[in-house]
Amino acid sequence: MSNKTTIRERATAAKAASIRLAAIKSEAKNAALTEIAKALTQRRSDIVAANQRDLAEAERNALAAPLLKRLKFDEAKLADVCAGIHSLIKLDDPVGRPLAATELDAGLELYKVSCPIGVIGVVFESRPDALVQISTLCLKSGNAVLLKGGSEAAHTNRILAETIAAAGEAAGLPSGWIALLETRQDVADMLELDDHIDLIVPRGSNEFVRHIMTHTNIPVLGHADGICHVYIDADADPEMAVAIAVDSKCQYVAVCNAAETLLVDAAIAETILPALQGALEAKGVRLRGCPQTRETIVCEPATDNDWATEYLDLVLSIKVVDGLDDAIDHINRYSSGHTDAIVTADKDKAERFMALVDSADVFWNCSTRFSDGFRYGLGAEVGISTNKIHARGPVGLEGLVIYKWKLYGKGQIAADYTGEDARKFTHKKLR
Amino acid sequence: MSNKTTIRERATAAKAASIRLAAIKSEAKNAALTEIAKALTQRRSDIVAANQRDLAEAERNALAAPLLKRLKFDEAKLADVCAGIHSLIKLDDPVGRPLAATELDAGLELYKVSCPIGVIGVVFESRPDALVQISTLCLKSGNAVLLKGGSEAAHTNRILAETIAAAGEAAGLPSGWIALLETRQDVADMLELDDHIDLIVPRGSNEFVRHIMTHTNIPVLGHADGICHVYIDADADPEMAVAIAVDSKCQYVAVCNAAETLLVDAAIAETILPALQGALEAKGVRLRGCPQTRETIVCEPATDNDWATEYLDLVLSIKVVDGLDDAIDHINRYSSGHTDAIVTADKDKAERFMALVDSADVFWNCSTRFSDGFRYGLGAEVGISTNKIHARGPVGLEGLVIYKWKLYGKGQIAADYTGEDARKFTHKKLR
Repeated sequence: MSNKTTIRERATAAKAASIRLAAIKSEAKNAALTEIAKALTQRRSDIVAANQRDLAEAERNALAAPLLKRLKFDEAKLADVCAGIHSLIKLDDPVGRPLAATELDAGLELYKVSCPIGVIGVVFESRPDALVQISTLCLKSGNAVLLKGGSEAAHTNRILAETIAAAGEAAGLPSGWIALLETRQDVADMLELDDHIDLIVPRGSNEFVRHIMTHTNIPVLGHADGICHVYIDADADPEMAVAIAVDSKCQYVAVCNAAETLLVDAAIAETILPALQGALEAKGVRLRGCPQTRETIVCEPATDNDWATEYLDLVLSIKVVDGLDDAIDHINRYSSGHTDAIVTADKDKAERFMALVDSADVFWNCSTRFSDGFRYGLGAEVGISTNKIHARGPVGLEGLVIYKWKLYGKGQIAADYTGEDARKFTHKKLR
Repeated sequence: MSNKTTIRERATAAKAASIRLAAIKSEAKNAALTEIAKALTQRRSDIVAANQRDLAEAERNALAAPLLKRLKFDEAKLADVCAGIHSLIKLDDPVGRPLAATELDAGLELYKVSCPIGVIGVVFESRPDALVQISTLCLKSGNAVLLKGGSEAAHTNRILAETIAAAGEAAGLPSGWIALLETRQDVADMLELDDHIDLIVPRGSNEFVRHIMTHTNIPVLGHADGICHVYIDADADPEMAVAIAVDSKCQYVAVCNAAETLLVDAAIAETILPALQGALEAKGVRLRGCPQTRETIVCEPATDNDWATEYLDLVLSIKVVDGLDDAIDHINRYSSGHTDAIVTADKDKAERFMALVDSADVFWNCSTRFSDGFRYGLGAEVGISTNKIHARGPVGLEGLVIYKWKLYGKGQIAADYTGEDARKFTHKKLR
């Protein structure tokens, strides 16, 4: 990973490595993961020392406290990521799964089999644990990976990537399967390489993700905004509605699955709005209401702009809507397609909401904060996608694989299946 | 579908319709398909008359004979597409399938359920039957569709789209679910609408598909080139090898799954090349060989450019390679990732080839011409994809759906699952 190799050279090496990785057996990948966890543990004092250099520099640059916390990578965090690797080893291999099998004719059998995507480019925020998680997820799924982390974590990322690369190679992985990018120019160079890189996963701020999405021909998996809604229906249990609204907004405000807009059915607005206001303001939430909301409670006015804003802060917009379909229309217009919830005791209304709201995650009577790969039981999470193709919502290992079609014949040619006396396809399901 | 509505207006209507379509039951979609087939049959004389106007104009413009043949849409072709609609009705609904179900905790259940993608933009060649096939595939999978056909088929496409739209609406489909675009400017406008359109499927020439891929932020499903290979291994049965080479090249030269390059193991080059030459030249194929090929047989010289050329004609490039791994390297360098085949009696070599060749379709001992949705038994085919995400190879109905996550709760909030005394997720598989 010398700075003298260009990004194109590293991507070429990754592409070549990805071909070999695709054919590596589960046991060999798991053995390499074991060696990687071992090597990270062995080098823990060097890793922590590198992280302390990053932390010291960040403090000199007056990095904000929450960012410093994310940047910190001590022995406890290292133990956590190594535990994560051991959990990953226990997960089923997503590669080589038979997805379909069809006899096309006697002795002509077609298999649809899962396989790695190839080379994944991941740009992630300043959490060094993300580097370990993402690279091991890519390895488990047989993909080569180009990684670019936050520049604040440069020393930590470098030693982590070097340790993982060396341990992997020692365990027999093809060299070049993992490479670290270090500068913004590196990222710009990577986005050009649509002949080498098969998928980009950007994580970070809305602006950053949107920039990536519009500056590459490589497919991008991720989400820019997280404008999530909670709709409180006339048939909602009021206590449950207040609890879900508070949790969806406040449980962790700076994340994409936090609610930004509350929709309230006009039929219960007068009774529930004061209860909502009390509970939310007690948590320090500032409210911005539509005109109808402000007929019932005192709060700042919301403008049309508010419906399209991801606050990521203790601010919540509230709109009174004219029943379920009005709520659905508002959500389909303003939601970022991430996570939207309905609170109601009426199952039919809930099913209608979940069918008609065009979002990755549609919830009934629970907090928007549950949309997360770990909470979903996916094991590990690559990211959250608001794409409409390939993978949607929290993306686990399954989002890092695709499939290929393998056709096993005995000399068959297409000419025998056309014209007069043509052989007929049997199209029998196998298995 | 007046010319006065802009593409943005049509896309907005399609988006709104797609939301309703996503929640329509299988029976209603099948009933609409039945009505569409009925309406097409009833209007057959008008449709054929419209097609005759297109044909007359095409003849005046001296359109080539094969194109005229593709443009022709007579009663027999109409009967074929209606038979296709009746087959489509019989296929399982790809929407609403449970893909996974997990209990996150008692009374908190997560379902991953297939759903339509939304709005699909399809640009297709001058075969009017494609309009019927694609629009009914989109309907069956619950997607709204914007269609742009070849301008030579303008009259035919217009009456087909009108008939389908009217019959669909009469059967209760939301208006606007299908719209016809008519000009190149319409297509350019459509490519801008990444907030309305979820997927573009371009079919046509390499250049055209590549233009689409690089001129939109909307995901594109398709393939530009079809540079397919047949590798003849030292352990191949010579007769089978010749038959597969001839069929892969000649059975239909103008299609993407026809072979363009033959790779021959050096160990058998001297014996098999003359047999290949005899059989291929008898079919009118012109051969272009690498220097080693030309030591054995007389043919034009191949340049490096030939390895990257899709002839779509009776031309075949031949390269002598140094065994299996050399063949795999050549294919991974020059193949368009469409379809590549090995001929060998050695199963281990075949498995190695199919594991390491990074193409959508990897075949053993059969013709490349089998890679096709109908031959695969997928029912109908949207197109063939060389993408590495979402859908690969021949794409049937399954390529037109994605999934959403539905979480059913009873008031659960995330705060109860964090900190001390946190509730634990059960992550039990349901069903």
